[in-house]
Parts: sequence; structure tokens; C-alpha cells
Amino acid sequence: MFERLALIGVGLIGSSIAHRVRREGLAKEIVAHARSRETRDTVLRLGIADRVTDTAAMAVTGADLVILCTPVGAFAAVAAEIGPHLMQGAIVSDVGSVKQAVIDDVGPYIPPGVHLIPGHPVAGTENSGPESGFAELFDGRWCIITPPEGADADAADRLVRFWQTLGSKTEVMDARHHDLVLAITSHVPHLIAYNIVGTAADLETVTQSEVIKFSAGGFRDFTRIAASDPTMWRDIFLNNKEAVLEMLGRFTEDLTALQRAIRWGDGDTLFNLFTRTRAIRREVIDAGQETPAPDFGRSHGKG
Amino acid sequence: MFERLALIGVGLIGSSIAHRVRREGLAKEIVAHARSRETRDTVLRLGIADRVTDTAAMAVTGADLVILCTPVGAFAAVAAEIGPHLMQGAIVSDVGSVKQAVIDDVGPYIPPGVHLIPGHPVAGTENSGPESGFAELFDGRWCIITPPEGADADAADRLVRFWQTLGSKTEVMDARHHDLVLAITSHVPHLIAYNIVGTAADLETVTQSEVIKFSAGGFRDFTRIAASDPTMWRDIFLNNKEAVLEMLGRFTEDLTALQRAIRWGDGDTLFNLFTRTRAIRREVIDAGQETPAPDFGRSHGKG
Repeated sequence: MFERLALIGVGLIGSSIAHRVRREGLAKEIVAHARSRETRDTVLRLGIADRVTDTAAMAVTGADLVILCTPVGAFAAVAAEIGPHLMQGAIVSDVGSVKQAVIDDVGPYIPPGVHLIPGHPVAGTENSGPESGFAELFDGRWCIITPPEGADADAADRLVRFWQTLGSKTEVMDARHHDLVLAITSHVPHLIAYNIVGTAADLETVTQSEVIKFSAGGFRDFTRIAASDPTMWRDIFLNNKEAVLEMLGRFTEDLTALQRAIRWGDGDTLFNLFTRTRAIRREVIDAGQETPAPDFGRSHGKG
Repeated sequence: MFERLALIGVGLIGSSIAHRVRREGLAKEIVAHARSRETRDTVLRLGIADRVTDTAAMAVTGADLVILCTPVGAFAAVAAEIGPHLMQGAIVSDVGSVKQAVIDDVGPYIPPGVHLIPGHPVAGTENSGPESGFAELFDGRWCIITPPEGADADAADRLVRFWQTLGSKTEVMDARHHDLVLAITSHVPHLIAYNIVGTAADLETVTQSEVIKFSAGGFRDFTRIAASDPTMWRDIFLNNKEAVLEMLGRFTEDLTALQRAIRWGDGDTLFNLFTRTRAIRREVIDAGQETPAPDFGRSHGKG
């Protein structure tokens, strides 16, 4: 499907792409660049890429598909560096969790005849780094493609087919709408998970060891989300500011109403909401986005 | 260990106790009462108890261990009914997620010579009902015992040993302190999970089907928590009002600071928090409260 795939950044997503591209034979050569020597050595040692380059510019030279897999905050600098070295007809894409910022930051550096088609695989685990990748990460997960206005339709189609071959279901969407959808399905959930884990750590009336001991009551699920990569998530919030602040405003307004219901002993308001949200869980499971196994299928065995 | 165990209420927790008590031979007879005929029929059909009674009073007659397993909001009425029928020397306990309210609501109905020793197994899944119970639910999980001031030490010890035989680790704690600890480790996490799922369902800019489709980004974990039993959780919030409002106040204050950091592009504040919370996740795993499997060990296979 492609002659040479260049991956700029090789974390969980980048290495998972490489594993799957190799398995499916989607590119004749995989070239990777990572900023740190340590990561480059790991990529070579694990055989994730065929070649590893010291600069991003070297990696994209001669590549017909370039995918930026660094945190979004690094995209502008990477684009400035690789812009002059991009091959005519190449597709430049990414895996960032925000999309309008990619068009704004990367777009200006893309020469005519090169196709910027941003993408976002909605998949991941709380682990990061090149060792954490695996070929099945994208299976059955959505990948959202957000071609800018006037983008080349053939290039967008090729990228869609690429992600489908990686195992994803695909959806084409406007970048700003993507950012709103992800603000509520991912960014605000992460923010409030980070926040409550921080709140719990700072309490004086309850010790941190008590919080950890009794976390099975619900808190531990938040700790998993709050263990996600700090750099990546800082960049997401800084680059999806408007949508996150809008959704956060709605969240806080609704939470204030719940707080008031608790204060005034209004059990009906609580019961009605709790009944409504239970139905949504069933829809998530029915949509194949989740396992119905109780407690996420956690083992309840000893230890 | 006991002659006759009476379970008032047979949901996830009550049926799990019954399964394990039978396996360990901890009681010669298990008698159960459930309010609805449907549940009583299910309990008999599944052989969860030896006998099922139409009233709670009949169930506790002659029982040396009585465990209330209904939602906390029903405790006062149940206690009023069973009080006159309790056997001298019997232990009355419960599995409610709040503890001071149990002492306040149930205490006045306990005759002299009967021992009220409240307990709270910090274990569960998002499923409810008698069919959802299983003998291993309490393995390796904490059970918090909160004897009121002046409680009989032998009775408290017997209850501690009972829960240890069910597989639990046990901790003895003051009821008010328990309520503070659980407010942050369980009650507030549930409240904000319910809240964000409700917020997402009410948006006009993002459709509900989009929320469900792209829930893998973090939202789906909240839907699991927000699928917990509505009656049980309504009662928890109404009966742990002060502690929940206190912790919620801290949460909101911290969230406002994060909101401000996003608005002003203060990446350091975000990065520092996100780094700190990641360390807490490691402590939760090290404490044996969680599996380190990526993504909760969810299958990433197709479908």
C-alpha cells in the first residue's frame, strides 16, 4: 500500500502502528525517528522499525506516508523541520487527540502537492513507551479522519483504507466537531480523573495509605485513567482549550445541581439520574465499545 | 462458627455472602428474606439459602448472626421490624457503604444483650441482584468493621473472623472516619461518574450516538461506575451527606484551579499534577488493590 512509512515518535501508538503495518505488509520499509537516544535504541533492539534516524527530516525523506506520533505540543516544531524534506504526493498524518490544532500548527509547513490528512485512533492503554505497543491495539476501535477543507479526496481515501487494514472502524469528521466530541468522551473524563486523584492525595482528614487501601470502591478506576502520559495530556488540554472549557462548564453546572440535591435530601433527582445513566452503559456495551464482564473482568482471586 | 445466619436482602453482596458461607461451612443454616416475591423465588431456585421467609422478623428468629443487606435507606424500617424478634447474644451487622447512619438508624431498635457491629465489605461489581453473587467476591478485598462505642469486644472479634473466613482483609475503624474515607475513595467518584454520563447525554452539540461510539477514550470507564444500582447509591448519598459535601467541595475547588490553568495555558500546573497522580496509580497496584494489566485487561480482539 505504501513504499515507505515514516513514524515521527514511537510511543504506544507509534509502535503499535509499526507492529501492525509489518504484520499486514502495508509498507515496504518502516523508518522511525524518536527524539531520545534511549527510545531510538529500544526501537532498534525490538526491531520495531527497519531503520532509525537521528533527525525527523532524515526519516521523512522519500516517505510516501508520514505519521506524527509525538505529543501534540511538538507538532509545530516537527512540521517546521520536515516541511522542506517532504516528498511530492506524500500523505502527512498524525495520531493526536486534538485535530483543529493540528491543522493550524502543521498546515502552514506543508508544501503544495503534499497532503495533510489528520487522524485520531481512539484507542490506547494507560501505558506508554515503545515497549507498550502491540499489533492488535486498533482492532474494532474507531479511527477518526479529519481532512481539512479542500483536501485531496484520494489521499483521504487511502488513509481511511490504511486504518481499516490496521483493524479500525473509521469515521470522517470535521476537525472542530471531533474536538467537541472528544472533549466530552475523553478529555474532560481524564481531567476529572486526574483532579480527584490529586484531591485525594492532598487531604488531611484521610491519609494517602487509606485512600490506596480502600480504592476498590471506585477510586482505583480513576487512578488508571490518571496514570496516562503527563506530557501527552498536558498538550491535549492546552490544544483543545475552548471545547474542554465548554464541556467542563456543563459538567460543573450539572454537578452543582447534584450537590444541591444531596444537601436538600432530594432523593428523586438522584435516583432519576442514576437510572438514566445505567441505560447509557447498556448502549455502550451494545455498541461493542466495552466488555460486559463484571468489574472489567478483573480477577477476584487472592492476591 | 454460627448456628443460623439470617440475611435480610439478597442482592450481589447478600448472595455472595451466602455462597461463601455455604462453601466454608460457617453456619448450620442460612435463612433469607427479600422484600419482593420474585427475589425470594430466585433465591430458592438457585439454592442460595436453606429457607426463605416472607418477613424479616421470621428470618431473624433464632438467628445468632443477622446481616442487613438491603439498601441503607431501608435499615430503619427493617430494624424496627426485627428488633423485638432478635435472639439474646445475637450479632446484628450489615454491609452498607455508610456506617454512622447505620448506628444512628439501627442502634435504637437493638435490645440489650444483642450486639450491633456494623461492617462494610469494600467489594462489588456494577451488577446487582441475587444472580450476580459469587463466592470469591470478597477475596483479598477489605472489610471495614465499625463497632460503636462500648460494643462487646468478643462480638466484634467474631465478626472480624467471620469476614476473614469469607476471604477479606479486615480493618476496625470509627464509623465517622469510615464515612470520610469512603466519601473520597468511593462516593464522590461515583457521583462524578454519574454526573458526567448525565452531562454527556444532555448535550446538543454532540449526539448521544457519538458519545457511545467514541467512548473508548475514557468515558466508557465512567459508564461502568455510573451503571451501579440506583437505589443503593441514592441511599448512600442521602446518608453520608456531610462527608460527601465536604469532599465534593475540595474536588470542585481543585477542579476550578485546573480549569484556570487550562484557560491561561499554564502547562506546568497540569504536568505536575499529572505526574503526581501517575505515582499514586503505582501505589494502588503495589498495594494489591488492582491489576497492572493494561486497559484493565480488556480484550483488544475483534468484536
